[in-house]
Amino acid sequence: MKEIELTELLNKMTLKEKIGQLSQIISEPYTSEDFEITGPLTELGIPQDLVPLAGSVLGASGAEANMTIQEQYLKQSRLKIPLIFMADIIHGYKTIFPIPLGIGSSWNTELAKLSARVSAVETAVSGLHVTFSPMVDLVRDPRWGRVMETTGEDKFLNERFAEAFVQGYQGEDYTDPYSIASCVKHFAGYGAPEGGRDYNTVNMSERQLREDYMSAYKAAVDSGTELVMTSFNTVDGIPSSGNRWLLHDVLREEWGFDGVVISDWGAVKELLPHGVAADEKEAARKAINATLDIEMMTFTYIKHLEELINEGSVSEQIMDDAVLRILRLKNKLGLFENPYRSADAEKEKELVFSEDHREKACKVAEESMVLLKNDAALPLNVEKQKIALIGPFSKGENMLGAWSWKGEPESASQLLDSLKDRLPAANLLYAKGSEINTTTEKLLTEAEVTASKADVIVLALGESADMSGEAASLTDIRLPNSQIELLKRLSKLDKPIVTVLFNGRPLDLNNIDKYSDAILEAWFPGSEGGSAISNILIGRTNPSGKLPMSFPENVGQIPVYYNHFSTGRPVETTPDKKYSSKYLDCSNYPKYAFGYGLSYTTFKYSDLTLSDNELKDDEALEVTVTVTNSGPVRGKEVVQLYVRDLIGEVVRPERELKGFEKITLDSGESTEVTFKLTRDMLSYVHSDLSVSADEGEFEVFAGGNSLVTGSKKFVIK
Amino acid sequence: MKEIELTELLNKMTLKEKIGQLSQIISEPYTSEDFEITGPLTELGIPQDLVPLAGSVLGASGAEANMTIQEQYLKQSRLKIPLIFMADIIHGYKTIFPIPLGIGSSWNTELAKLSARVSAVETAVSGLHVTFSPMVDLVRDPRWGRVMETTGEDKFLNERFAEAFVQGYQGEDYTDPYSIASCVKHFAGYGAPEGGRDYNTVNMSERQLREDYMSAYKAAVDSGTELVMTSFNTVDGIPSSGNRWLLHDVLREEWGFDGVVISDWGAVKELLPHGVAADEKEAARKAINATLDIEMMTFTYIKHLEELINEGSVSEQIMDDAVLRILRLKNKLGLFENPYRSADAEKEKELVFSEDHREKACKVAEESMVLLKNDAALPLNVEKQKIALIGPFSKGENMLGAWSWKGEPESASQLLDSLKDRLPAANLLYAKGSEINTTTEKLLTEAEVTASKADVIVLALGESADMSGEAASLTDIRLPNSQIELLKRLSKLDKPIVTVLFNGRPLDLNNIDKYSDAILEAWFPGSEGGSAISNILIGRTNPSGKLPMSFPENVGQIPVYYNHFSTGRPVETTPDKKYSSKYLDCSNYPKYAFGYGLSYTTFKYSDLTLSDNELKDDEALEVTVTVTNSGPVRGKEVVQLYVRDLIGEVVRPERELKGFEKITLDSGESTEVTFKLTRDMLSYVHSDLSVSADEGEFEVFAGGNSLVTGSKKFVIK
Repeated sequence: MKEIELTELLNKMTLKEKIGQLSQIISEPYTSEDFEITGPLTELGIPQDLVPLAGSVLGASGAEANMTIQEQYLKQSRLKIPLIFMADIIHGYKTIFPIPLGIGSSWNTELAKLSARVSAVETAVSGLHVTFSPMVDLVRDPRWGRVMETTGEDKFLNERFAEAFVQGYQGEDYTDPYSIASCVKHFAGYGAPEGGRDYNTVNMSERQLREDYMSAYKAAVDSGTELVMTSFNTVDGIPSSGNRWLLHDVLREEWGFDGVVISDWGAVKELLPHGVAADEKEAARKAINATLDIEMMTFTYIKHLEELINEGSVSEQIMDDAVLRILRLKNKLGLFENPYRSADAEKEKELVFSEDHREKACKVAEESMVLLKNDAALPLNVEKQKIALIGPFSKGENMLGAWSWKGEPESASQLLDSLKDRLPAANLLYAKGSEINTTTEKLLTEAEVTASKADVIVLALGESADMSGEAASLTDIRLPNSQIELLKRLSKLDKPIVTVLFNGRPLDLNNIDKYSDAILEAWFPGSEGGSAISNILIGRTNPSGKLPMSFPENVGQIPVYYNHFSTGRPVETTPDKKYSSKYLDCSNYPKYAFGYGLSYTTFKYSDLTLSDNELKDDEALEVTVTVTNSGPVRGKEVVQLYVRDLIGEVVRPERELKGFEKITLDSGESTEVTFKLTRDMLSYVHSDLSVSADEGEFEVFAGGNSLVTGSKKFVIK
Repeated sequence: MKEIELTELLNKMTLKEKIGQLSQIISEPYTSEDFEITGPLTELGIPQDLVPLAGSVLGASGAEANMTIQEQYLKQSRLKIPLIFMADIIHGYKTIFPIPLGIGSSWNTELAKLSARVSAVETAVSGLHVTFSPMVDLVRDPRWGRVMETTGEDKFLNERFAEAFVQGYQGEDYTDPYSIASCVKHFAGYGAPEGGRDYNTVNMSERQLREDYMSAYKAAVDSGTELVMTSFNTVDGIPSSGNRWLLHDVLREEWGFDGVVISDWGAVKELLPHGVAADEKEAARKAINATLDIEMMTFTYIKHLEELINEGSVSEQIMDDAVLRILRLKNKLGLFENPYRSADAEKEKELVFSEDHREKACKVAEESMVLLKNDAALPLNVEKQKIALIGPFSKGENMLGAWSWKGEPESASQLLDSLKDRLPAANLLYAKGSEINTTTEKLLTEAEVTASKADVIVLALGESADMSGEAASLTDIRLPNSQIELLKRLSKLDKPIVTVLFNGRPLDLNNIDKYSDAILEAWFPGSEGGSAISNILIGRTNPSGKLPMSFPENVGQIPVYYNHFSTGRPVETTPDKKYSSKYLDCSNYPKYAFGYGLSYTTFKYSDLTLSDNELKDDEALEVTVTVTNSGPVRGKEVVQLYVRDLIGEVVRPERELKGFEKITLDSGESTEVTFKLTRDMLSYVHSDLSVSADEGEFEVFAGGNSLVTGSKKFVIK
């Protein structure tokens, strides 16, 4: 359809029909006879008259089912405006990839793109058009359960992943049948709730919001994401879903976003409990005037928009603009021509959870894992070592992690099975040792007896999938006592212990470190998790993940993040240590730093050189470093570039990631890695909110993690 | 001296002499022959030429000593401009009152004023003119060690205490020889360092800064404080000491403050490590242009101001204004007429640490203590009960707390001695049980043996004085394990345990609560601590303190404070509990709430009534509540008024303290307490930074703590 036809269509629409486009409901009403709301569904409060008018549906999937809904819907639709189907496809449709925090740990944006592409294919053939992904919320607080859905604490890394996910989902364009539209979320600042408690108040200065928290959403917008989802939180006192400054002034006017803004589930009506709207009518008025296009699963628009327009407190124009944006999205996806788009029951069977997709999931999972510690305990020697696999995560339902909607935990590859496939039967022993939150003397004793017969213990510990994710915040980020008890008991056997961790957040790992010889952070690795872990454990794959988020020493140290500011009394340089910025009982540094991760080989960095000692306008400065695989085996390394702006108009981070590249080197092999730095990349938000780079000195670091020392300096004059 | 004479004096001054007035150094150089800097003093980097010119001195005390310094100084002074002596008199000069957090717990501003008055008297006769007090930094994070120097988490309470302290120090005017000038600190936002780590970055929106954090400084300014001290932290990226917006635009222009702004110790030069000044010259330029008058203990002004003025990057006017403000302060204090002011060695002997002052300190200490729990274990029955006093705080050096400079721990009344004075000798047993951070089997066994002979155990536990205060932040806010171990061991004796706590911050008291029958929060109670505690334990004094700050359940729950905002998904009212704003492993509420504290009697609240259901312009609404002492003994109650603004332009706190009154009632006695509410008191900072009250509904609560239920409503139309 051409733009003019869309306008003509809009002009034909009744007010009610327009408002229907602005509403999104779940699919269940469409599965009943005549779209009738009956039974428990009535409790959701969906107005009956909305069902035949709603412009979009969430959470419906399956080619056949969605085609049926579409068909039935269009039959009732006066103007034959197709539904658009949306859902949360977060880290895979049915082929589940690692949780986003794991994908972030790969520092491999090509793999992120690949995972999004596989998701898009499975999603598209299953009759869906939009995924509510990527989530790019910057986070510095591991108490927040939803940290598992992010790519971590750094804006630069988040920006690159935001771009990769959007590109992966949306592809080149929608002539590709497997392209789906992406929806970046949660705009804005959702990853900074006070106390790490989900949905809690967010407060920061506009300068910090712009400098740190907004850039990844902007990267997704600049990459062409079709939709933006609002966050549940307030932004400087005003909930995002009613925040005109945020949605209109910044997102649309300043950034030029012309796509669809959708609320998170129920967020428009939540203006009431937030205490900024006295009733649903006021909530509707604030949301639509903020240019929020689609209200998800509350019904203030359908109930009150007509009245608001009639009384003039909402202009028809603002509503028409919203409707037109939705129609345009449907049109982009070709739904007017083919309302079923790529829904295809045959292809669904062929492509969803295919061997090819699972292999890709395995590859991503392997690169997502982070070797945190290795005192010569890994890789395992499958020929010579008898291995005792112990722990509640040896097999079970927690391989996929939260938000793996269509994923089937029972189809996921398990660690126990995968090790069985790879080891001589006699070399693998198994005992459970504990449940996730409890254990018994019997389980512990069994574990001890089993482990005592082995040469090395592989201990699979972690958090259950529902201990992270949405509304799963914790005040204690240590593993449950039962598991620590198991670890302590086994440590008394004086055998090497390799701990494999399944979890969705940075944890306090002091106890794990104390009693383990090696620690492999496996996150929730997805459908091929067992295979991926096994491949790493036995050395078939060399681990290459790096942390996208700091692991604190303890929960009392939060927030701890690599790109913090200097203070006026840095503990490192203040002559009077007593009066420096520190804790009495803990260091200022994390247990495991941002960018950190080990390999079975080692990498040496040398010859850091700059192409010039001055960065000139419109020219790029080249930073080159030589990286050598100085260890025994082939491996991948994430080469990281950090820059420190020594003097700023406002305080500047101690260092900031400004580049990274994942390379592969054979043992003994060397290569030069070159990064480009432009003035633009050194710009930041000043106190007057202008963005520019200051003149002065900058320091450049290149290495394998954020603690790298040794630097070169350049200036901007 | 008249203003015109001050101007004439200014005009006579050389540039060097002016800059001298803008510099403050410690007193040691003045104790040497000819003000010569020698020995270890040279390490401080004080320029020799500054000593005869410096306008003020910090940390010198003693009538005789300061008179000598003044005499010697004036001999050398060309224009005979006297020195002004300043020091940190925080909670008493030599007669030490409870730490400010304890004074805050009294909710008795008359006592706060009294404590400041006693401090002023002792300070004045000892030859000092200015105290760097009050500290009114709002704080919500008990990890921050300096929480002990605050009056807690609430702006309204902080404002009232700010006023009381300023009035107490400064008195009616300086014709009163015992009036000293006060210096409110630390402007601004010093109480909100990230992670509770002292000196760390502060970040919040300007709206929140103005709404919550600035009001207590403003209250001190409005009460006439002569000086304001800058904070170490950044305010939205710019360190306070170089922040012209903060010091000039807000403090001087907007608030009309015409007094002296002084940096905290070394803070001007700290612009360098903060990374906003490339060198000392730039630091000097930024500080003086921000209208920071006195640079404390760094020397960028004396080294660079002349050059800066000569090259025109600092105007002579801005320097002259600063000098004039300092001269005016000296003149106000009458120093030109009598440079010794109230320094008087005879009066010093008579008044400092006098019986009268100590009695006042005892009274304040008694009202500062908070009875957190009492399962019929208190008061002790001195006739019938045999009491075992156990614990490392039974006697020792930790009664005064941090920042009690001239206080003598060895002169403080001790709990053991005080109980001895009050109990029949046969009824008091004692064992140490543990050191503060360690214990031994021998100490534990002794304690058990001693306790087993008693009817009730009084356990004196706590943090050492240096575990809170400046640069004493902690990531673990539980008591040391040794003391918990002692408590657990004693709990096995099945005798009532009364735990008395000495500490400078809200703690995680779950273990203490679990094993104690009563808990008395004594803070660091000061010179008369032992007497005050004993009086409460034996029922001679009925405890009446209330918490000025929430005690969290654990460190992972921080920040937890009573006047938080509602979220869009309050755990209390969201139908789907799973997706509400909460932690999986902890409540959203503190262990002990703001405003909470028990008494040996009970109070009932009834008949909450409003004078009108509408608050009209320029009229006050009267809120009246009847309070009855429904328990067995006379007691004091802090009647608290809270208001909730139901719908705001921005999110509003769930409730806010808007009034309190401490009353005394005999057993069975009733009284009506009336509070006035004005429109002004309901104003808040809107998104455009304007201040006003919104129309709409408000809810009013009155009761004995911040969790009070039962309310009345009124409207503003």
